[in-house]
Amino acid sequence: MKFGGTSVADVACIRNVAAHVKREWDAGHDVAVVVSAMAGETNRLVALTAASVPRPDPAEYDMVVASGELVSVGLLAMILQSSGVPARSWAGRQLPIETSPDHTKARITHIATDGIEDGWKERQVAVIPGFQGISPDGRLTTLGRGGSDTSAVAVAAALGAQCDIYTDVDGVYTTDPRMVPEARKLERISYEEMLELASQGAKVLQTRSVELAKIHSVPLRVVLSFADPTKPDPGTLVCSEDEIVEKQIVTGIAYSRDEAKITLLGVADEPGIASRIFGALAEANINVDMIVQNISEDGRVTDLTFTVDKADLENAVEALKKGKEPVKCRKLLSETGVAKLSVIGIGMRSHAGVARTMFEALGKEGINIQVISNSEIKISVLIDSKETERAMKALHAAYGLETA
Amino acid sequence: MKFGGTSVADVACIRNVAAHVKREWDAGHDVAVVVSAMAGETNRLVALTAASVPRPDPAEYDMVVASGELVSVGLLAMILQSSGVPARSWAGRQLPIETSPDHTKARITHIATDGIEDGWKERQVAVIPGFQGISPDGRLTTLGRGGSDTSAVAVAAALGAQCDIYTDVDGVYTTDPRMVPEARKLERISYEEMLELASQGAKVLQTRSVELAKIHSVPLRVVLSFADPTKPDPGTLVCSEDEIVEKQIVTGIAYSRDEAKITLLGVADEPGIASRIFGALAEANINVDMIVQNISEDGRVTDLTFTVDKADLENAVEALKKGKEPVKCRKLLSETGVAKLSVIGIGMRSHAGVARTMFEALGKEGINIQVISNSEIKISVLIDSKETERAMKALHAAYGLETA
Repeated sequence: MKFGGTSVADVACIRNVAAHVKREWDAGHDVAVVVSAMAGETNRLVALTAASVPRPDPAEYDMVVASGELVSVGLLAMILQSSGVPARSWAGRQLPIETSPDHTKARITHIATDGIEDGWKERQVAVIPGFQGISPDGRLTTLGRGGSDTSAVAVAAALGAQCDIYTDVDGVYTTDPRMVPEARKLERISYEEMLELASQGAKVLQTRSVELAKIHSVPLRVVLSFADPTKPDPGTLVCSEDEIVEKQIVTGIAYSRDEAKITLLGVADEPGIASRIFGALAEANINVDMIVQNISEDGRVTDLTFTVDKADLENAVEALKKGKEPVKCRKLLSETGVAKLSVIGIGMRSHAGVARTMFEALGKEGINIQVISNSEIKISVLIDSKETERAMKALHAAYGLETA
Repeated sequence: MKFGGTSVADVACIRNVAAHVKREWDAGHDVAVVVSAMAGETNRLVALTAASVPRPDPAEYDMVVASGELVSVGLLAMILQSSGVPARSWAGRQLPIETSPDHTKARITHIATDGIEDGWKERQVAVIPGFQGISPDGRLTTLGRGGSDTSAVAVAAALGAQCDIYTDVDGVYTTDPRMVPEARKLERISYEEMLELASQGAKVLQTRSVELAKIHSVPLRVVLSFADPTKPDPGTLVCSEDEIVEKQIVTGIAYSRDEAKITLLGVADEPGIASRIFGALAEANINVDMIVQNISEDGRVTDLTFTVDKADLENAVEALKKGKEPVKCRKLLSETGVAKLSVIGIGMRSHAGVARTMFEALGKEGINIQVISNSEIKISVLIDSKETERAMKALHAAYGLETA
């Protein structure tokens, strides 16, 4: 079971967490709980480091920001004990949760589970801090923001257990219910679909944790934390494709308004030009998402359009204009008022016509498609961001997602 | 060097601490710094545990309350680095600081200094959290409130170093300057005198840390933290008697208003009666301080007066009246409006007349002495607490303490 910062925001919330844990423990399950720092706490600690020095030493930064989790594990363990559930907290270094030495963005390399399993023999619940681990030379490391989901999946993988992520939503939806009221909660979704949904802007789970769950086949359940602990809701199960009997052609629709579009007009159409352009961006550590190159009419110049994260736009333009080898083109256009819509479904692999439905639905609404890209289980289009909501509703209806 | 909570209360304070450390480091010293949690932080954490459960598990309590020190060591280490001083933080478990398994009141059993000394070879400053350690089974322990002074002295003892306690006063005074403006800062004071001063109510140093310094002959210096770090003041050195050339007959005067007086009238004067009375109090975990037994006139009954901590008064009366063997006496009187004044000085051992000066000075002021007790280097009297200030001033003048 994993509980994030808002789930342990104060003592009353932690009592609610304890009630969820007690329910599972009462049902006879062996339980390990991974918890984040109390909401706002990690931000407070990060702000302290920022107020101290502009570029803190990563190891010292980790020492400071990982302290919040020690508070929440201690409090949860003592509350569990007082409700009659034997429990003990484990610091990351105690189990230990071993990581790479990359401070502030360490990877988990190994988790020793003896302590947890010895405790289970006496029906003891293990309470484990997310986000932290220990480097090969014994220093405290952190996994980066959102790392608690990753900690939870890694602990579950090491234990051969299921991982229930308790959060502030009651499951994964066909799309954002705030935008499309007809959005429906999914009973199951495959890792691949969840990954596309997550990287396409759905913020339910950290991409990294879903990838880890997929690799180790850890069943991942998204459950509402602020629910009556005595009436558990199954939430949404993220699992392997084989366990999804009724495969939907389209499972969900994601959107992102964090995109920016760059168009290079009149680029010399010669071998190596693309690698030069995208090499310059890669060197500047900028991820490029959708790419479209038009056929060049005369075989000498071409137009190239691609998207980057909105936050990277300025750096991207700078890298292209002032890199080691500035890109030669007639004109460089950049635009931020764009949104990316993605239709996702493992059923696409075996069904044609998914793209046509998308284009027809948007066409009927008079919405212009600026760029198209696709993968095995996803089709994405770039549109004017003002049209996002209308487009989402049209697509949700076109694929009949409001009914199972 | 040790800095308490108010010395690291915010980032600006920690910068000031770093400047003190840098001064010593620039002077070529090898430095280890012990720091407390930022002021208010430990109280906040204790309040969280109190809000969680009435009687928290001691091990989980330690996990929660010791997290504050990890923040201050990380921040200090990164600020030192940014000011050009190589530094690294060490958690209690990293050195390690080994302790007994008594959670919330652990005793330090051993400190490994290899890490600190290896760092010193590269001129690295070691930044160490006070108050925390690690139990034989690897769990986090705390030393109890004020334990950071003890941590600092223990680290200094392990390193064979001097221990400078930076605090919110600039040294040890002949008496409380808020009460007696003529109070004078002492250049040196012996461990024994400091122990009497500390346990008599002067709050500069934790008794436990002075005891530890005495056992291991660690020179202890009390220095003002909020001073200009470029103009260090020597503060007061607490050291062994041999190092004090000019021994004062009286070094200081302490007072305590935390006393309560209990008088048993008409107790049967028979063998074993005292051990029965004080045994009952010891069993209830109550420390008895001053004791006076009057000579019994007829050899059958006697009167007995003693003092206890004001906070223990109710429990003490209960233990005497309702213990296993209730104490038989004609009447039990208790009173809280009393103060204890103590005149302290190692010179007393070789000089007579110290008590007479005290009694004369108080007598001249018309102040009644209720109880008297003494030790080798101390004479204490119990008086009406309303007379405290007047009595202190009279004694300070009588012993000529305003001049060295």
